[in-house]
Amino acid sequence: MSKGLVVQKYGGSSVANVERIQKVAERVVGYRKKGFSLVVVVSALGDTTDELIELANKINTDPPEREMDMLLSTGEQISVALLAMAIHKLGAQAISFTGAQVGIITDSSHTRARIIKINADKIKEELKKGKVVIVAGFQGITLNQDITTLGRGGSDLTAVALAKELEADSCEIYTDVKGIYTTDPRIEPKARMIKKITYDEMLEMASLGAQVMQARSIEVAKKFNVPLHVRSSFTKNPGTMIIEEVKKMEDVVVSGITLNKNEAKITLCRVPDKPGVAVKLFKKLAESGVSVDMIVQNVSHTRQTDISFTIAKNDSGKAGRIARKVAAKIEAGDVLLDEDIARVSIVGVGMKSHHGVAAKMFEIMADNKINIEMISTSEISISCIIKKRYAETAVRKLHEAFGLNKT
Amino acid sequence: MSKGLVVQKYGGSSVANVERIQKVAERVVGYRKKGFSLVVVVSALGDTTDELIELANKINTDPPEREMDMLLSTGEQISVALLAMAIHKLGAQAISFTGAQVGIITDSSHTRARIIKINADKIKEELKKGKVVIVAGFQGITLNQDITTLGRGGSDLTAVALAKELEADSCEIYTDVKGIYTTDPRIEPKARMIKKITYDEMLEMASLGAQVMQARSIEVAKKFNVPLHVRSSFTKNPGTMIIEEVKKMEDVVVSGITLNKNEAKITLCRVPDKPGVAVKLFKKLAESGVSVDMIVQNVSHTRQTDISFTIAKNDSGKAGRIARKVAAKIEAGDVLLDEDIARVSIVGVGMKSHHGVAAKMFEIMADNKINIEMISTSEISISCIIKKRYAETAVRKLHEAFGLNKT
Repeated sequence: MSKGLVVQKYGGSSVANVERIQKVAERVVGYRKKGFSLVVVVSALGDTTDELIELANKINTDPPEREMDMLLSTGEQISVALLAMAIHKLGAQAISFTGAQVGIITDSSHTRARIIKINADKIKEELKKGKVVIVAGFQGITLNQDITTLGRGGSDLTAVALAKELEADSCEIYTDVKGIYTTDPRIEPKARMIKKITYDEMLEMASLGAQVMQARSIEVAKKFNVPLHVRSSFTKNPGTMIIEEVKKMEDVVVSGITLNKNEAKITLCRVPDKPGVAVKLFKKLAESGVSVDMIVQNVSHTRQTDISFTIAKNDSGKAGRIARKVAAKIEAGDVLLDEDIARVSIVGVGMKSHHGVAAKMFEIMADNKINIEMISTSEISISCIIKKRYAETAVRKLHEAFGLNKT
Repeated sequence: MSKGLVVQKYGGSSVANVERIQKVAERVVGYRKKGFSLVVVVSALGDTTDELIELANKINTDPPEREMDMLLSTGEQISVALLAMAIHKLGAQAISFTGAQVGIITDSSHTRARIIKINADKIKEELKKGKVVIVAGFQGITLNQDITTLGRGGSDLTAVALAKELEADSCEIYTDVKGIYTTDPRIEPKARMIKKITYDEMLEMASLGAQVMQARSIEVAKKFNVPLHVRSSFTKNPGTMIIEEVKKMEDVVVSGITLNKNEAKITLCRVPDKPGVAVKLFKKLAESGVSVDMIVQNVSHTRQTDISFTIAKNDSGKAGRIARKVAAKIEAGDVLLDEDIARVSIVGVGMKSHHGVAAKMFEIMADNKINIEMISTSEISISCIIKKRYAETAVRKLHEAFGLNKT
């Protein structure tokens, strides 16, 4: 009777209250009635995770990470139990499991654990009985039986990993937006929903600021070629497919524009231009857990140079202190912190075979009198750091110039 | 360095908010500094369990019990994580565990599971490292890895069972009252706190309406001779010891007076007085899960008799329907339901060797013009069913007459 196995993942906004949980149950039972086998991964209700973090911080601003995982994992456990109850209410059979119960084994890096393996026997057994299997997202367990969590966006990862392990026919990621857009529709109302996008493009867009899915779960989906289907839990719209390769018309070069306002820029001025200086700085930053994004060092004409780099804004205090310490040690000049920046990026696999895309981007910026402070490129993306106040204009102008506006 | 092992249990009111959790952490760390090894069992924060039940009922008024356990067990998991964080904040080492993680294996009677065995190796290992071990109360896991809960008051049971398994030197039950009283101090301000009471007396008092501890955990404590210490988490008062035997002055006959207003009485009138009639009724009730408390059948002078019995008030609808069905079948007369009753009981091991205690109780009732509708006796207690409006008077008069008032 099975038409195939579908893994569905519902985010926190899709199960934010009783009515929404009932809606999800209706959708799930609808699939079941059509003959699909279903594994459903659920996030914590609405803002539960943030509320639990707040509660923990009232008690201990630096709580042991093992205990944080113990605490946070309850959020998803509540969701799966409630969804199972809602499905039973509709007359279908469902059974809920924690990450531990379905054998999602992780390493012991609490609050950001990585999945080592999944023992899916229990899920297969319950699927055979015709039950909808509901799995708590975002969590696993170490071989030592300690509860772990997978970090922000971890429920996506749970869904993708289960889809791979169970060789699911599809993996649907339900969220509060209709799919992936050419850019943020709140900035550019002419943004179009993308029907199909490649893993690589989606990866770039995720790391560059598109917040629908975390980069990590797309990486895993790409690695194991799990087709992802991003769609809204509030509508019947088909949403966006994320797949290996997309056959496009020749002239589609840029697939999307992203904007990230959550970075800050640090510049070390008058750095002595000799080998090993940059290493000192970036090694110290890495040791302190600060993740550096773009780095620009100008070719030196004198014996001094400027080094600029960007980091996540909430790391700027820590990164600034480290930069000042290193600057003093290597006898560099001032250290400047600039939080008034935005990163605008264009993404598209079409760039690989097209020349002049970067030139066109810079030209559009120049035409609109937007000064570019830093540039960074990958094989399928180009990013510019500009002043924050030009961010929205840049997005709209690029969106239009690369032919992404709705027709 | 260890002065001995103490198992402490903190109820929901003791951890109802951040400040109270911090107080509990302070008490725990105080014990630790004195050199005790500690296992701490915690209930869910304040009214969490009731709130989760309410949430579940909004989704499904008859939720699968397995899913209910999945849901409710999160309450204690939140408590143990937060308490561990609070203890760390004070500079001591603590580690939290779910019932599943410390191997509290139960049968599969969801929502009212019974503990089959405890594998305490993990607890012993962490105690050896000098850590405070915090265990989620009220929950366990089946051999099939399904999460179970132990029913209301289940955290007491967790504490008692762990104290037995670990051969603890003492088991402290922290609650929001100072200890066990000769009667409810809200009814009789002259009630005295009892310093020592036997398991048997406490068992009678618990089943007769004293709500400090559930009868089930006292039964287990008695069975394995685990000394219990009931005390307040808000004061340093010593509280009440519950132990095997209490040496008392000769004249202490009655230890406490209990009152239960949560029962209802059902009377089947004019029941044909022939063998097998009572069996029919009480078998049907048992099959429907209705627990019958007192039963009174008058000696028959004619060929008809009246049968009265009491049940928990929230079973009265169900019990009434069954009684009416049986009455019709056996051709009995009317079925009367009376919810306007109260049960007043006197409890004391001293009764065993004293005659005339019952007579004295009845005399006090008569002196105060309180009509007794039903009487039931055990080896160490006597209960009377009276009209509800006389309940408080009866308690106060008995409390005085049996010499329990504060001197």
